[in-house]
Amino acid sequence: MTAEKDTLQRGPDGKLRHFLTVEGLDRAFLELIMDTADSFASVTEQTVKKVPLLRGKTIVNLFFETSTRTRTTFELAAKRLSADVLNVNIETSATTKGESLLDTIRNIEAMHVDMFVVRHAQSGAAHFIARHVAPHISVINAGDGRHAHPTQAMLDVYTIRKHKGDFHRLKVAIVGDILHSRVARSEIAALKILGAEEIRVVGPRTLIPADIQSLGVTVFHDLAEGLRGVDVVIMLRLQRERMTGAFIPSEHEYYASFGLTEGRLEQAAPDVMVMHPGPINRGVEIDSKVADGERSVILQQVSHGIAIRMAVMSMAMHHQGAGGVA
Amino acid sequence: MTAEKDTLQRGPDGKLRHFLTVEGLDRAFLELIMDTADSFASVTEQTVKKVPLLRGKTIVNLFFETSTRTRTTFELAAKRLSADVLNVNIETSATTKGESLLDTIRNIEAMHVDMFVVRHAQSGAAHFIARHVAPHISVINAGDGRHAHPTQAMLDVYTIRKHKGDFHRLKVAIVGDILHSRVARSEIAALKILGAEEIRVVGPRTLIPADIQSLGVTVFHDLAEGLRGVDVVIMLRLQRERMTGAFIPSEHEYYASFGLTEGRLEQAAPDVMVMHPGPINRGVEIDSKVADGERSVILQQVSHGIAIRMAVMSMAMHHQGAGGVA
Amino acid sequence: MTAEKDTLQRGPDGKLRHFLTVEGLDRAFLELIMDTADSFASVTEQTVKKVPLLRGKTIVNLFFETSTRTRTTFELAAKRLSADVLNVNIETSATTKGESLLDTIRNIEAMHVDMFVVRHAQSGAAHFIARHVAPHISVINAGDGRHAHPTQAMLDVYTIRKHKGDFHRLKVAIVGDILHSRVARSEIAALKILGAEEIRVVGPRTLIPADIQSLGVTVFHDLAEGLRGVDVVIMLRLQRERMTGAFIPSEHEYYASFGLTEGRLEQAAPDVMVMHPGPINRGVEIDSKVADGERSVILQQVSHGIAIRMAVMSMAMHHQGAGGVA
Repeated sequence: MTAEKDTLQRGPDGKLRHFLTVEGLDRAFLELIMDTADSFASVTEQTVKKVPLLRGKTIVNLFFETSTRTRTTFELAAKRLSADVLNVNIETSATTKGESLLDTIRNIEAMHVDMFVVRHAQSGAAHFIARHVAPHISVINAGDGRHAHPTQAMLDVYTIRKHKGDFHRLKVAIVGDILHSRVARSEIAALKILGAEEIRVVGPRTLIPADIQSLGVTVFHDLAEGLRGVDVVIMLRLQRERMTGAFIPSEHEYYASFGLTEGRLEQAAPDVMVMHPGPINRGVEIDSKVADGERSVILQQVSHGIAIRMAVMSMAMHHQGAGGVA
Repeated sequence: MTAEKDTLQRGPDGKLRHFLTVEGLDRAFLELIMDTADSFASVTEQTVKKVPLLRGKTIVNLFFETSTRTRTTFELAAKRLSADVLNVNIETSATTKGESLLDTIRNIEAMHVDMFVVRHAQSGAAHFIARHVAPHISVINAGDGRHAHPTQAMLDVYTIRKHKGDFHRLKVAIVGDILHSRVARSEIAALKILGAEEIRVVGPRTLIPADIQSLGVTVFHDLAEGLRGVDVVIMLRLQRERMTGAFIPSEHEYYASFGLTEGRLEQAAPDVMVMHPGPINRGVEIDSKVADGERSVILQQVSHGIAIRMAVMSMAMHHQGAGGVA
Repeated sequence: MTAEKDTLQRGPDGKLRHFLTVEGLDRAFLELIMDTADSFASVTEQTVKKVPLLRGKTIVNLFFETSTRTRTTFELAAKRLSADVLNVNIETSATTKGESLLDTIRNIEAMHVDMFVVRHAQSGAAHFIARHVAPHISVINAGDGRHAHPTQAMLDVYTIRKHKGDFHRLKVAIVGDILHSRVARSEIAALKILGAEEIRVVGPRTLIPADIQSLGVTVFHDLAEGLRGVDVVIMLRLQRERMTGAFIPSEHEYYASFGLTEGRLEQAAPDVMVMHPGPINRGVEIDSKVADGERSVILQQVSHGIAIRMAVMSMAMHHQGAGGVA
């Protein structure tokens, strides 16, 4: 059923063509991505960290928005699959000569490349490109506006699965700037699909979208209440660089109300996991003792990010079987 | 005879040492470059798009002028030949510490590199470097000032050959800003060498150099006249970023007089090819209907650019036989 | 003894773990680095300039200070060892989002990388990182503040050894801006360890640190005296971009007093070698006739830089035996 509905991301055979969003994918497919990542996690720990799966393929990192961290993880994942990687920073490219996005895409695809990894400040940019590229090219969304960041969501649920096994009894709190966060939106979708028992969003009224309940989440404006009994806390970065208005009174007051401290964490389940997509603002949304503490899996998330990106890239190239799932 | 005259580009054995300009090369040699490109065009379409010809070689992209598009095609061509590629952006390099061009070259060549791909705003820069590098190093001109852009010219004539077979009955119109265009100058030279029947340059008086007839071309200031009966139209980009004076009244008026539309194209031969080196200014020098229409080969030019650059790079490295030609 | 004192750079087995400074290393160990470089010097001159020693390893160039020249030599060295190289320019990275140095390090190391090559404006930055990285990661100091630039010092002594054989009868003059030079400090340490007979520092009072004699060098404020009878002259770059105060009256006056000319060089031994870490300021600290003359080994230094960096990188990865030395 899903394969019929989501023909942009998956071909008629059910295999991954583009990876743009987790929304609309089914549980078996998300499990398949995580199982594939499991097979790559060991590669990353070997002495020779390369597999020849994508040898001779050309992957283009098309970043319209600077992100060294995300670009780096995709570049590493591609190199460990033995692909050739081309970094195209669009701020210094032809678009400054007035070329349209579509002309840029058409030109690079004429160079016989195989995959675009796209980061763009506009919501929907990756979908737009996926709808217009040549049939043999795959598009991976590395973050588009406020819309989606699906590989981040997948590495988050992969990290949860590693620790908790499955999602059925799981209570998850996502805390902070939900309004500006493509990460939160993708995480909610992935957790829903995987059957999490309860998903809470926690934050000040100014940072929670009005219609968020329609996604099937519970809203809390008090941190202590929001954390009560949860198995997983996902802290979001306070996106200072995105906030144009007065969404919060001050960082100090924000921390007083929504900063995660060891004391506050006592409300959660004893074996709570603390997550954060990074980069963290120490003393703003999270206390260093928590970020560096034993409940934190923040650096494991980074490691898992490589395996998840290797999985998605190789599946989109049809080298990993994704058929028979839908 | 040519080999004797052009000892900078070709060694005593007639083989390619540097590729700086098409001027002075002979027809057999340009045909050899295109034949070599043919052998690489298939590589580019294979699943594994790599050949080990230049494995262990170091190619340095030495760009004194930003051009993501051109740098990208050279980087891809080099990687598909299995060379190691080093991108050196000279704006952020030692020259900002006051080092001379020659010192920069001497230093990089001391690192035992094998090839420089040079882009520079000064006419003659690639020749200057070729005259001064160590004997084992090849220099490829990726565009120098208003002087030459020989790989662009070669990919253009290669694209024409693919469609038209040979050049003897061919009428070609080059339209637009001839004055600032290194592309036009290189194209005229290549078409002359290959025996095109007639080469026309078309544009306003302010954008056509006064002495252009000396190159053996016919000048037209009226687009309809210039297009009459031609087999190939090469539109040039309106180099807005280069025009310091008032060369044209306005983009709107320019389009009214020299923009290529479907209506105007009716003056040309029924099977006319429309070419453009890119990036295109839609609605300035060319209408989108023409750029995206069935007579347009603009994206094929981009694809052919990879094959031509692979050919020139491998020939300059003496891995492709260029002997016995002169 | 050294291995016990310097447990940060060398493991309990005496093998290289990090390469942060030459200070504290012993003579046998510096000789071992140079012997290892000898084995790579030939690689660099082969047709296929690669060895598979570090295949599948990931080396991160972590440059907090721009240096195309140094970054390029490390990148080339790494590629010739078949490693994957990731260039991380920290000015455009997460630190602009307020992330701390340690968080940046922790994040990149979570991506299962194997080596950091670090350049930083702060003295001690490489040591700081080495003390905090995961046990399997090596750190190479590519220049930290005014503190050390150990691979530059090693390529300098390696160049001297190539020409002079050994160091016992050697008189060396280091001339110029000693105060701002991490290169000078590392060179003095390396020459001391290798047993050079006499090390002189030559320059105006304003550019020589007050306590420099404690390093075991002789100070000269007159160039002719300082050069008398020396076997090696190492000219330093006048670090104009670092001088915030009025250290020198003018470049012209500096050249009149401390610029190296052919005339002044007559004070030195007949077979004197002239060295410079580059990039050179022609007509400021050195005359072109000397820089390009037959006594100059400036470009050889650049070539040797690749071999030395290959040696240090491969030793730090434990692929070259460094045991049994301490």
